Amino acid sequence: MTWINENYLKLQAGYLFPEIGRRRRAFAAAHPDAKIISMGIGDVTQPLAPAVVKAMKKAVEEMGRPETFRGYDDGGIGYEFLREAIRDNDYRARGADIDIDEIIVSDGAKCDTGNMQEIFGVDNIVGICDPVYPVYVDTNVMAGRTGGPAGQGRYEGIVYMLCTEENNFVADPPEEKVDLIYLCFPNNPTGAVATKEQLKKWVDYARQNKAIILFDAAYEAFIHDPDIPHSIYEIDGAKEVAIEFRSFSKTAGFTGVRCAFTVIPRQLKAYKKDGGAVEVAPIWKRRHYTKFNGVSYITQAGAAAIYTKDGKRQVKKTIDIYMGNARLIRETLGEIGYTVHGGLNAPYIWVKTPHGVGSWEFFDRLLNEAHVVSTPGAGFGSAGEGFLRLTAFGQPQNVKEALERIKAIS
Amino acid sequence: MTWINENYLKLQAGYLFPEIGRRRRAFAAAHPDAKIISMGIGDVTQPLAPAVVKAMKKAVEEMGRPETFRGYDDGGIGYEFLREAIRDNDYRARGADIDIDEIIVSDGAKCDTGNMQEIFGVDNIVGICDPVYPVYVDTNVMAGRTGGPAGQGRYEGIVYMLCTEENNFVADPPEEKVDLIYLCFPNNPTGAVATKEQLKKWVDYARQNKAIILFDAAYEAFIHDPDIPHSIYEIDGAKEVAIEFRSFSKTAGFTGVRCAFTVIPRQLKAYKKDGGAVEVAPIWKRRHYTKFNGVSYITQAGAAAIYTKDGKRQVKKTIDIYMGNARLIRETLGEIGYTVHGGLNAPYIWVKTPHGVGSWEFFDRLLNEAHVVSTPGAGFGSAGEGFLRLTAFGQPQNVKEALERIKAIS
Repeated sequence: MTWINENYLKLQAGYLFPEIGRRRRAFAAAHPDAKIISMGIGDVTQPLAPAVVKAMKKAVEEMGRPETFRGYDDGGIGYEFLREAIRDNDYRARGADIDIDEIIVSDGAKCDTGNMQEIFGVDNIVGICDPVYPVYVDTNVMAGRTGGPAGQGRYEGIVYMLCTEENNFVADPPEEKVDLIYLCFPNNPTGAVATKEQLKKWVDYARQNKAIILFDAAYEAFIHDPDIPHSIYEIDGAKEVAIEFRSFSKTAGFTGVRCAFTVIPRQLKAYKKDGGAVEVAPIWKRRHYTKFNGVSYITQAGAAAIYTKDGKRQVKKTIDIYMGNARLIRETLGEIGYTVHGGLNAPYIWVKTPHGVGSWEFFDRLLNEAHVVSTPGAGFGSAGEGFLRLTAFGQPQNVKEALERIKAIS
Repeated sequence: MTWINENYLKLQAGYLFPEIGRRRRAFAAAHPDAKIISMGIGDVTQPLAPAVVKAMKKAVEEMGRPETFRGYDDGGIGYEFLREAIRDNDYRARGADIDIDEIIVSDGAKCDTGNMQEIFGVDNIVGICDPVYPVYVDTNVMAGRTGGPAGQGRYEGIVYMLCTEENNFVADPPEEKVDLIYLCFPNNPTGAVATKEQLKKWVDYARQNKAIILFDAAYEAFIHDPDIPHSIYEIDGAKEVAIEFRSFSKTAGFTGVRCAFTVIPRQLKAYKKDGGAVEVAPIWKRRHYTKFNGVSYITQAGAAAIYTKDGKRQVKKTIDIYMGNARLIRETLGEIGYTVHGGLNAPYIWVKTPHGVGSWEFFDRLLNEAHVVSTPGAGFGSAGEGFLRLTAFGQPQNVKEALERIKAIS
């Protein structure tokens, strides 16, 4: 008799975004003439940069000729041409000494942040911010690293670290001991960023407790403030305790193309029950070789083009468009009396619902009355209740129209 | 303190193909003038079909224009245009009634066959053929579904099902009870195929024991004999007990492009400890949504082009080239006295080493003396000792030259 993994049955809700999709489709079916504008799922809307398109077309042509055809990406951790561009532009240029052997290319930060927990023991105590990107929680539930439901969408066994208006949405390290710490800055969903001093507290905590920080920096390209670190490796000592996740999804419109990477420094170690230290990078690479087979050459060629002079300029232009949207959202909602957070160094705006209305209720109101899709804050955890996430991804004219409609019903 | 997943430390060797790569690179470094010919790793050599190249270039262009740009593949299980083409061509055309909701597109059969075990309980007894594609074994070791090493590269707790010359490399269901059964036909590494009668025995066994068959059909496109089933769903009752894995890697040269799919019929159920039945497909989809984010639109557009009239014709031509290589390998090695299996309905030829020489010794001999890279049978399990796998993937003139060199040293 084949047994199911019953940990999956502990999951309390469908994954958040399919649920939003279902409500949107139900509304659209009932109101076929409504022009729905999405500020919900964090999906980009601007096309790929011309430099990327050019590189990918060239790569497709190469794959169509025997002399330039490429099969498996040997080892599956990414072509050197891409890992070198990442090293030079994302790390060396910011004073972080990361080697290409420490960079592992993948098909998405969701995959990497979701799969990474698997190489660590099930008895690690996991520290997770609330609100949070649901993948961190759900993948630990699936792995059996939690108990059952603990009310308000929480699970037994996870240490939740509150991110609220009081701490400006950046939690301090907890009093209790945690082993695996998920941090995301610029933050999804709140749009908060962490200063060097704030990250240093976490790095020090991890060093003291031999804990590991899983640092999701998927939104670093949206940082505008020159004092905010883009990489956790800008903090001294972080290479001993942190894994960093990056993505081209939001940076360069790769949500439908799929490319990301993870950095695991050579120094990073986890422990056996007998106290012996084990290098983490070879274990992750062993997983990668065995359960993954590399990223499309065409995709990697496109990703490398982001780092060319033309690519950089074009990608910056796209990010400027989104951050223009963010500014407009902040200003307009502020004018009509909403309390808004984020949106300065991140593509997410965290809006307080008016008069203490619940997240899903406000979500439904915006959908039904303004035909605007948002994301209910409660979907990111109990501390997200009473908030709504709006994304800055969208055509500027659509964002403008959505804001006018919200204004009209407010 | 962060604990490592100590199950990973039970793994006895590096993943097979990186090890072969290391030996190849060491030889190449010591003999820079040697022209090495690879008949080792099962990687394709023919370029993408023109219909695929055309479709992918068009898709890249679409991604570069705002009005046709596509972000996330909503839900991440594949565009309907691709799943419909799969349903019509791979299933309905062979009398297997599979619906598009039962087809889940992914970035590789390695990923799917490796990850599938995760949704089942750790206490399932796993039945695995010997020799076998190492991914099935290693991923179960990583999950903790085995004990430690049991000698000859085996692990405690796995039920090994021998595939030898005596049973023509197709095992019968075992005497003991197994819950999760990995089968691969056409087989990697032996090149054996299973008849409908042989598969029926397995389906009957699974139905009797409420077991699940994980059926890897990645090489079905190489079947030439009209009586050999391409899908396990050609067997009555299989939809209740089997998951099928397919890939475009070998069919259409997608090893460097990455696209595959898995079929989980609606009828397929696994069980809770309290005896309750659980549908498997929603659990796999929940995993897919949470740990994966869909396949590149460009890749899916390319995969769909395989099913067009031009695509089918072009892909068949490529397969004919490989199967021409297979015939030449079989015939040449047969002439010089080797015992060969497979290569009739599969791109793999399973060669008995001469005079009982060990697999790795014969591998090294072919590398050092003929400058030909093969795959040692022992790398696929203890029953592979004394065999060598050659692949039919290669340029015909290279295959010819490799065979002449092998002839010269034999």
